[in-house]
Amino acid sequence: MNEPQAIAGVPLRWVGPLRIGGNVATAEVEVPLATYETPLWPSVGRGAKISMLVERGIVATLVDERMTRSVLVTAGDAQTAYLAALEVDARLDELREVVRACGRFTELIGFRHEVTGNLLFLRFEFSTGDASGHNMATLAADALLTRILETIPGISYGSISGNYCTDKKATAINGILGRGKNVVTEILVPREVVRDVLHTSARAIAELNVRKNLIGTLLAGGIRSANAHYANMLLGFYLATGQDAANIIEGSQGVTVAEDRDGDLYFSCTLPNLIVGTVGNGKGLDFVEENLRRLGCREAREPGENARRLAVVAAATVLCGELSLLAAQTNPGELMRAHVQLERKNATTKLGG
Amino acid sequence: MNEPQAIAGVPLRWVGPLRIGGNVATAEVEVPLATYETPLWPSVGRGAKISMLVERGIVATLVDERMTRSVLVTAGDAQTAYLAALEVDARLDELREVVRACGRFTELIGFRHEVTGNLLFLRFEFSTGDASGHNMATLAADALLTRILETIPGISYGSISGNYCTDKKATAINGILGRGKNVVTEILVPREVVRDVLHTSARAIAELNVRKNLIGTLLAGGIRSANAHYANMLLGFYLATGQDAANIIEGSQGVTVAEDRDGDLYFSCTLPNLIVGTVGNGKGLDFVEENLRRLGCREAREPGENARRLAVVAAATVLCGELSLLAAQTNPGELMRAHVQLERKNATTKLGG
Amino acid sequence: MNEPQAIAGVPLRWVGPLRIGGNVATAEVEVPLATYETPLWPSVGRGAKISMLVERGIVATLVDERMTRSVLVTAGDAQTAYLAALEVDARLDELREVVRACGRFTELIGFRHEVTGNLLFLRFEFSTGDASGHNMATLAADALLTRILETIPGISYGSISGNYCTDKKATAINGILGRGKNVVTEILVPREVVRDVLHTSARAIAELNVRKNLIGTLLAGGIRSANAHYANMLLGFYLATGQDAANIIEGSQGVTVAEDRDGDLYFSCTLPNLIVGTVGNGKGLDFVEENLRRLGCREAREPGENARRLAVVAAATVLCGELSLLAAQTNPGELMRAHVQLERKNATTKLGG
Amino acid sequence: MNEPQAIAGVPLRWVGPLRIGGNVATAEVEVPLATYETPLWPSVGRGAKISMLVERGIVATLVDERMTRSVLVTAGDAQTAYLAALEVDARLDELREVVRACGRFTELIGFRHEVTGNLLFLRFEFSTGDASGHNMATLAADALLTRILETIPGISYGSISGNYCTDKKATAINGILGRGKNVVTEILVPREVVRDVLHTSARAIAELNVRKNLIGTLLAGGIRSANAHYANMLLGFYLATGQDAANIIEGSQGVTVAEDRDGDLYFSCTLPNLIVGTVGNGKGLDFVEENLRRLGCREAREPGENARRLAVVAAATVLCGELSLLAAQTNPGELMRAHVQLERKNATTKLGG
Repeated sequence: MNEPQAIAGVPLRWVGPLRIGGNVATAEVEVPLATYETPLWPSVGRGAKISMLVERGIVATLVDERMTRSVLVTAGDAQTAYLAALEVDARLDELREVVRACGRFTELIGFRHEVTGNLLFLRFEFSTGDASGHNMATLAADALLTRILETIPGISYGSISGNYCTDKKATAINGILGRGKNVVTEILVPREVVRDVLHTSARAIAELNVRKNLIGTLLAGGIRSANAHYANMLLGFYLATGQDAANIIEGSQGVTVAEDRDGDLYFSCTLPNLIVGTVGNGKGLDFVEENLRRLGCREAREPGENARRLAVVAAATVLCGELSLLAAQTNPGELMRAHVQLERKNATTKLGG
Repeated sequence: MNEPQAIAGVPLRWVGPLRIGGNVATAEVEVPLATYETPLWPSVGRGAKISMLVERGIVATLVDERMTRSVLVTAGDAQTAYLAALEVDARLDELREVVRACGRFTELIGFRHEVTGNLLFLRFEFSTGDASGHNMATLAADALLTRILETIPGISYGSISGNYCTDKKATAINGILGRGKNVVTEILVPREVVRDVLHTSARAIAELNVRKNLIGTLLAGGIRSANAHYANMLLGFYLATGQDAANIIEGSQGVTVAEDRDGDLYFSCTLPNLIVGTVGNGKGLDFVEENLRRLGCREAREPGENARRLAVVAAATVLCGELSLLAAQTNPGELMRAHVQLERKNATTKLGG
Repeated sequence: MNEPQAIAGVPLRWVGPLRIGGNVATAEVEVPLATYETPLWPSVGRGAKISMLVERGIVATLVDERMTRSVLVTAGDAQTAYLAALEVDARLDELREVVRACGRFTELIGFRHEVTGNLLFLRFEFSTGDASGHNMATLAADALLTRILETIPGISYGSISGNYCTDKKATAINGILGRGKNVVTEILVPREVVRDVLHTSARAIAELNVRKNLIGTLLAGGIRSANAHYANMLLGFYLATGQDAANIIEGSQGVTVAEDRDGDLYFSCTLPNLIVGTVGNGKGLDFVEENLRRLGCREAREPGENARRLAVVAAATVLCGELSLLAAQTNPGELMRAHVQLERKNATTKLGG
Repeated sequence: MNEPQAIAGVPLRWVGPLRIGGNVATAEVEVPLATYETPLWPSVGRGAKISMLVERGIVATLVDERMTRSVLVTAGDAQTAYLAALEVDARLDELREVVRACGRFTELIGFRHEVTGNLLFLRFEFSTGDASGHNMATLAADALLTRILETIPGISYGSISGNYCTDKKATAINGILGRGKNVVTEILVPREVVRDVLHTSARAIAELNVRKNLIGTLLAGGIRSANAHYANMLLGFYLATGQDAANIIEGSQGVTVAEDRDGDLYFSCTLPNLIVGTVGNGKGLDFVEENLRRLGCREAREPGENARRLAVVAAATVLCGELSLLAAQTNPGELMRAHVQLERKNATTKLGG
């Protein structure tokens, strides 16, 4: 155990700065992205550059936050399952106390249930301070489940997780009921910037967004998703900041909205399921600490404030990469040329380095 | 450019060995997993241990492989779009030649299209040797699109990617039409092993799989997905082997099947969308090279053989973690106890280390 | 206008009786089914026969009821949209009054919202007495929208329906948040009845349900659906009772659960989205009145009671047809033989009639 | 059996005429709609009126047709299932002969399969002449399954239908692989007509379509669907023409595309899954015969021609109602006023009639 921990050293670069405003933070920050797909850096970089050219930058609005865990209990029949659900609902005050005993940053803030046949899914929603909250939610759900099974007759243990949470699976429930931080980012890009920096027009981007992100994803059988590549930015950001990057699954489900406003471009990315934290697993590593600190997310603030700041920075980063790629795809051949150029450049870099 | 590349150092550990059989490889291999969520290691380790207790180990059957890219073209009306689709279909031999000119490992092996309004989505399927093939497919699609736009009248450039591919978004099309490597893994675990190593029964696991993975995910509004946590294992494996880990999005969509066969446990994980390669982006890094070599995936073999081997090892790793977690979730409190123990142990390790 | 109204005369037959219990009604009733697919009658009839052989019959548990309408408003940006949502939430008491003024059977009982970019979807939930409630919900939503637009600044009319309701489209939201009546039906069929009347075993049905309804539908890319043919029974029942049969779309999304309980068969159909009423459009027709009366759904009862009774009868009818078809499909060739026999018989009937 | 058959008399009215063009038929036809929701008639009527004001009318392009049935077989393991799939593929010529023996209008035209665990889903695609083809496909699938089980070792009967077809359930597979008739309808409405008849603008409709049909349905967790109410028109048309109206489930999954073309409105409805026929169940009824005849769908034509004509008329009818409702929803209060007026009028009608 004294040998050094092996690592996968994922190349990391700081990109930016981005200009960010909105209801959580006002900042100009560089962002770290760890990835094997190095074209991501200049792509996000172009979006960041645009944010600096716009007075308000990227406006990020946090509209919700909660972490969830669903437990599954079984009954002999649906009537028993249904009565149990009503009973849980009636005892929410008591259950809130159970959760408070699990840790001072965990609080039960919501509850939904669904009965199917003799199965009862109980979905608990928590606030979890600065942690993304998987473990806190599981710990609390374990305590809740124990109390429920002890006090409500006719039901039995089914599972500590009923997949109705939903963790690391693409589903509709997370967006509809909420899980993680729900952040909307927006930018209004003047037509000159669209033309000179993005080499395209507001109309072309708005049309592409409808045809590719909305209709194309729909035809592919997507679920609550209309974007080009949120997953790429989230992966890079999550790895660089010690997040559980498997949560890019639900993170990948978001919606890009683009409008041609008299030649200016209204561009927006809604990310209903950002699962990020500034404490917890992965955060003890030195480079993670350093990256979070440099992002301004290790300050002495109210619990939850650092995590919310991290979320809006993540969301703004997503907008940068999404805007840049969509702009590129409005022009035939541009994406390919960019890739080829980059690979040539990287090859040189490698020889040189 | 002479400064060392910054990295995100994701903790990595080798787990196993796993015993693997099937139509691609017969092997006993340790597997590398890079993750911030260290409970993943013992979880996969328990599954690996079980594979070694079963004579045939985990049987992995590769049933398909292809990489895809959809391009979008627009027409004035649907009739023109439809005729263009028929024309592309009629010229597939010519288009295969276009692709061959793009590189000696890229081959056009399939084509589907869909017309919606005046939009035409053309989805091309390629074989790409040992590469996962994103860039090869994009390069080929670029050449195809250029040829198509030059020779078929009435249509215009829409996008080099129409989201009908689908890359890094959870959709139904990838599973139905194929994208990446489709691998089914199976193991038949004797009842004694189920009891003594997994501390549960075949019946309990089969029931949990129906209730949680199938029904729970369904109720959550999942799409072509029924599993507990494929994403976790894929993330760890992809990072450790230089893959584009954003492809865990489609990788997360797979189906666990469990049957109680007279007390023995038939357990199976089907992963229709494994996107892995042994050459290409991310593979030039020293630790990646070393990890691939140690996995036996850098041998002199027919093109594609190394990548297929990597895919079945990835799939077998997924089975190990899935089996272990499901077994744990059949027992009230087990998951929580395991987490708490591990965190205590890790704390000690950290103090000691 | 004095010429007789033309009609489509859909063949109708009464099937049963069914025995029904549960938290809404205890009854033995025949049910009317109007359909061009006449094999539906004997199929439901077999299920009905089984319900009469089981002491408690089919137990139907109503677990929820509400009708919904979502309106769409637009804002200049997400922050404004979000603040408007908070404002609506803060004024729910006032808005409840607005709804009360729309009619004495309409009540606002719930509210959810979602912000995407600069769009705000407001989903209102109503109780609507004995009506299915489409028009009452639309009328109330119209009044709500008018009040909201008059009193909350910064937002504009988007649409009286934002497709976030969701009416007559298959989505996940209706099951998750509730729309229409949510009814679970169950029956425990003794092994002898399974063998002698259904010609199969509990185990065979349970296995088929997992493989076909759960896994098959999942692979097809289904959304919140796992059943063989709920739509058939709902269509026949809706047409016979004057319902808006286009609501079979959401009605078709339900989940069949089957368990082998030591040889006996636990069989359950959960229908989260039954949209039925005993007053409103379609109910003034003579045959509809007569059919509702014969079903015992035109009694002098508390508002809503007649509609709830109708819902559980509809749900029990679905169970009858689902059980019968699944049983048939466990046996190779049975479905085909049944069809052929029926068509021969019908041919004779037609000759004779 | 000599008593008259009871019926559900669904009110029916002829609406139109509609002007239709395209690759199947050029016609001006009135269309019959049977419904309890009488506002449907004037709604479709307004669309029909617009079609008569446009020189080419509604252009309907048939882009595909096939009927499908999936059977399910089970194996001991995935390898056996996979080999069986390859064997079926290799024997397609032989299987085509098996299908030919089932009837002179049934032909096997396509085949896809999917392996999950030890389960093998075989999806057969047929042409079925003028029938919608459910029974022909089932009969053929029964024969295919018998032959396959007799000649391919290691597999057993699972189900004559594996829900991978998919019949009367909303899934992604039908749109992606094809089932029923795939028809795109389009109309280019001059700006004056948009203004004077629809009381709105091309831009308002295009915006509403994006926000409501595309984004709203997406947020609701829809699957391959973006429209306001295709189900309503399909139900009315299917009932009036003796179709199995439960197929409105898959029919409801279609995509509306609207574009502002310099003030003119490009409006398109794509219906990938129209399941209609002019022979088969339901077609023997006198009023159905008469309605089909009046639609020009009982002429002496090549097999399949009458059904294709019926499909494009159905699709054009859908466009009429969709266009009218979307136009109404662009204007605050219009929908409500129309409903109220109609109900007042109907009340009068009823008193008078």
